[in-house]
Amino acid sequence: MAELRQNMVTKEWVIIADERAKRPDDYIDSHERAMPISQPAYDPHCPFCPGNEELDLELERAPAEGPWQTRAIYNRYPALADGELTRTFDGVHRRMSGVGHHEVVVESPKHNHTLALMTPEEIKCFLETLYSRGWGIRKDSRIEQVVYFKNHGERAGASLKHPHSQIIGLPVVPSNIRHRIDEARRYFDDNGNCVSCIMMADELEKQERLVGVSKHFVAFVLYAAPSPFYIWVVPRRHSVSFLYSQPEELADLAELLWDVLRKLYFGLHDPAYNLIIRTSPVKEISNDYLHWYIAIVPRLAQSAGFELGSGIFINPSLPEESAAFLRNVKI
Amino acid sequence: MAELRQNMVTKEWVIIADERAKRPDDYIDSHERAMPISQPAYDPHCPFCPGNEELDLELERAPAEGPWQTRAIYNRYPALADGELTRTFDGVHRRMSGVGHHEVVVESPKHNHTLALMTPEEIKCFLETLYSRGWGIRKDSRIEQVVYFKNHGERAGASLKHPHSQIIGLPVVPSNIRHRIDEARRYFDDNGNCVSCIMMADELEKQERLVGVSKHFVAFVLYAAPSPFYIWVVPRRHSVSFLYSQPEELADLAELLWDVLRKLYFGLHDPAYNLIIRTSPVKEISNDYLHWYIAIVPRLAQSAGFELGSGIFINPSLPEESAAFLRNVKI
Repeated sequence: MAELRQNMVTKEWVIIADERAKRPDDYIDSHERAMPISQPAYDPHCPFCPGNEELDLELERAPAEGPWQTRAIYNRYPALADGELTRTFDGVHRRMSGVGHHEVVVESPKHNHTLALMTPEEIKCFLETLYSRGWGIRKDSRIEQVVYFKNHGERAGASLKHPHSQIIGLPVVPSNIRHRIDEARRYFDDNGNCVSCIMMADELEKQERLVGVSKHFVAFVLYAAPSPFYIWVVPRRHSVSFLYSQPEELADLAELLWDVLRKLYFGLHDPAYNLIIRTSPVKEISNDYLHWYIAIVPRLAQSAGFELGSGIFINPSLPEESAAFLRNVKI
Repeated sequence: MAELRQNMVTKEWVIIADERAKRPDDYIDSHERAMPISQPAYDPHCPFCPGNEELDLELERAPAEGPWQTRAIYNRYPALADGELTRTFDGVHRRMSGVGHHEVVVESPKHNHTLALMTPEEIKCFLETLYSRGWGIRKDSRIEQVVYFKNHGERAGASLKHPHSQIIGLPVVPSNIRHRIDEARRYFDDNGNCVSCIMMADELEKQERLVGVSKHFVAFVLYAAPSPFYIWVVPRRHSVSFLYSQPEELADLAELLWDVLRKLYFGLHDPAYNLIIRTSPVKEISNDYLHWYIAIVPRLAQSAGFELGSGIFINPSLPEESAAFLRNVKI
């Protein structure tokens, strides 16, 4: 029979379905490759390819000298932009001006590259650019929350093929982040521990959902994974923000991300996925209960009315089997 | 410049983007028709077509005599099913057995029918079946929440073409519904009013976001619509549950749904959509702050990493323009 599992951090329930159960290898060819192998390494019409740098306003590049490996640029069609921050009542409704930051991080000069096929050194360069831009956005005192995310493949919402991520700086803390903070604080008040630290320690002990571990990070399929192969990468050291990572932690994270993304790429034949850095609100700079992490969400299933209506997801795969499958992928 | 708007009921912010702004008629042919016109009116291989009734276990049909118009059946691949309800700790995690109900309501004997093309009388029959099954599931004291939903078209998660809806009875109250209850209660404590009643009164006064009104219901595009043409249909009478609707209210709702769904069908060329009845937990039978409603969510855009990471949606359409567009559709 099916079972319901609760994510102890977010308190969200999921249904792990058995009647609809799929084996991990059912997902190998259930989808199109997110980055078709037919893509060229260079596309003269791509705004992110070398030679078109003047099309966008650059924020920074790395390395600073010589050919660039990653570039941060202003989003040409920003969801939020600079301007006067106003918060008004529109009758009974609350409204704010769309002030914020919206940046793009081009992850490689190579048009058909993808994180899974880069070197750990290249992934480290990408993480350092995210880190550096996060600090850049944080200087703007109007910003309350920074969201770092990557859409890989059309099913994950990517509209351009060239490998890139985005950073949005928001003038509000989203209600969904507030709810997670409330839950974490409540757990801390009840138990005196960070709930994410407890979850991670349990995963390290049980091992059955681990995908990979490194000196500073632990990657596992969530016990209450809302969708197949839903992975969290959690820092071992309790810390509220990605931006408090040490250089050696970023280098170590690059190695582990490389490992996990290659397992997804080769094991499931390049599925579309979202990668999100979930980090604390900018001005909550230290506490005992918030713990930043990375979520990797392969887009192998379509959410429907039930998920919209209840917030509960039906996952037709068993997290323990998914994790074992990924551990066994030869990369 | 873009703006942020807050849904006063859920407290969720959305970004109404202008740099990416689309006109309502940009959505007319931006998608495939959810129900291709080439579908036959009868498909002998469809489990929901007349003649195949014995393939599924029937719960009830309407009308009770003569050829059926709607049928409620057990879902052949239920996400939740009957069994012993157990709630256990799996180490640090909470787990429950997958006990619940999962039913399908076949909306018409006609394979290629769709609510928008039915008569109000047929839609009323469908609503009455939902209502009757809701009461049926509610008799099971293990059930805490009933979710009624429809997936229309592949992009909305429908896997079978024959028009149908689903009902899931859950042994827990989802955390997302708990959060909405908390917000509504807080508003009531602060202001002494139901926040949904206030929102509805404002929409009736402003008129600019109205899609249609009837004696007992009001349909409008949300001020803080997370995606294009996101509509709420709200009962004028304060009531916590769909199951407390009076017969004349259901008949009236059928008329208004007919009107709204036809506007979407003819105005936007049959977009995929989800329809969800958001109603209070089964055992919260009366209070001053919960207000049931129907959400109609056309699936015209793809959610991506930012939405997953923040819970904030970027809507490239202006709700007031979307509503005006729909009001002008000739049905």
